Amino acid sequence: MWQLYHFPLCPFSRKVQLALSEKKVPFSLQLVYPWDAPEGYEQLNPALKTPALHHPERGIKLADSQAICEYFEETESKSPLIPGSAAARAEVRRLVALFDDVLYADVTAPLLHEKMKKRLVLRQSPDSQVLRSTMRLTHEHLDYIDWLIDTRRWLAGAQLSLADFAAAAQLSVIDYLGGIDWADHRQAHGWYRVIKSRPSFAPLLKQKMEGLPAPRHYADVNA
Amino acid sequence: MWQLYHFPLCPFSRKVQLALSEKKVPFSLQLVYPWDAPEGYEQLNPALKTPALHHPERGIKLADSQAICEYFEETESKSPLIPGSAAARAEVRRLVALFDDVLYADVTAPLLHEKMKKRLVLRQSPDSQVLRSTMRLTHEHLDYIDWLIDTRRWLAGAQLSLADFAAAAQLSVIDYLGGIDWADHRQAHGWYRVIKSRPSFAPLLKQKMEGLPAPRHYADVNA
Ligand SMILES: N[C@@H](CCC(=O)N[C@@H](CS)C(=O)NCC(=O)O)C(=O)O
Ligand SMILES: N[C@@H](CCC(=O)N[C@@H](CS)C(=O)NCC(=O)O)C(=O)O
Repeated sequence: MWQLYHFPLCPFSRKVQLALSEKKVPFSLQLVYPWDAPEGYEQLNPALKTPALHHPERGIKLADSQAICEYFEETESKSPLIPGSAAARAEVRRLVALFDDVLYADVTAPLLHEKMKKRLVLRQSPDSQVLRSTMRLTHEHLDYIDWLIDTRRWLAGAQLSLADFAAAAQLSVIDYLGGIDWADHRQAHGWYRVIKSRPSFAPLLKQKMEGLPAPRHYADVNA
Repeated sequence: MWQLYHFPLCPFSRKVQLALSEKKVPFSLQLVYPWDAPEGYEQLNPALKTPALHHPERGIKLADSQAICEYFEETESKSPLIPGSAAARAEVRRLVALFDDVLYADVTAPLLHEKMKKRLVLRQSPDSQVLRSTMRLTHEHLDYIDWLIDTRRWLAGAQLSLADFAAAAQLSVIDYLGGIDWADHRQAHGWYRVIKSRPSFAPLLKQKMEGLPAPRHYADVNA
């Protein structure tokens, strides 16, 4: 069986979990903290990041969340997550990169640093200026999602795609860290509630980061 | 015809140029500086980054270098750049992500900031501590390339692939900025010389960043 090396608040591991669950590919979870990776982890991912995916019986090692998602897009015909024409697929990938790179760099990464790493590893308090800037940038990204949902059925177009799961993976971590205020984002909020209530999302809402409780509304699919 | 929005020292635009040239897809170049993008550029790339690719006659807009490369991998059968089995393709994509994300974040981005942006835009001098740290990290990445070339014909395996072009695109920008010392990297140096002498690379060696001359050895395919 596939083993997914992850930690509960890694948004890229969440994206992979969602893709695997949607495609009904069975996997087990292996906990690893990139800042404290066990010896030998570089054999699975030389970049020393999460996620990495290992199939010991078949001797397959995969790393980088997008390389992993493309692999299952090619090997599992069930529930295509990069659907449509070449141009439609390019739009899915553009948005996945926007959420994986820009939303992560603008918001998820600084919030993980300020609220998770400082608390659990560095024993420091968060920098309120950074928190304010992530709040502002979260609103900009939610404005863009509002606009997408105003003009399309799902984020990348007429069909549910990896773009929806990539965005929801980042937002679910931001939400766990108390970084989302849905006021003035009716469209984004409606879209997120729909994704959040899919069966593939349920396991994510149960995963807790040790020493860092989630806010009460986090796991409520109606919130 | 395709129009590629780029600036000469953008490594992701270089990756796309190499992929298009290898596949013999004609394109013209449009100069754009992301920090000074013309009004309307967000219609081509809402992330306001380079590269973006536009085909006005066909009404196709593509953004994000990897989404662009995957698009041409799907639409142009000539010279596959993500070749082989699903596992081999995953290895190509893992390495592309390593160079696009980690090598860029460790070295190319800080060097572009210190040596290009501070000189041309901010009118400040570079921070020598940052320059030293990029030097150290460049050596670590070149060590990894040495190791890959010790064990494989090309970076991702037996076949030339997008991994080679992604790495060479980053390294060519680092080299332009005077950031590469090949001493102790015989394998990486030999591999880079081979890539550098491909016809697809020639145009890159002629592209100059206004106000920032390249070191003499930069365009010499034997250096
Ligand atoms: N492009 C990678 C990014 C993975 C990534 O940045 N993971 C973070 C955790 S959320 C990490 O391991 N960071 C540790 C580090 O950068 O040292 C992917 O999509 O898998
Ligand atoms: N993932 C993007 C990265 C593109 C990127 O970061 N481009 C840089 C120039 S080398 C840029 O436009 N930066 C401007 C900014 O981030 O505001 C891609 O592969 O196209």
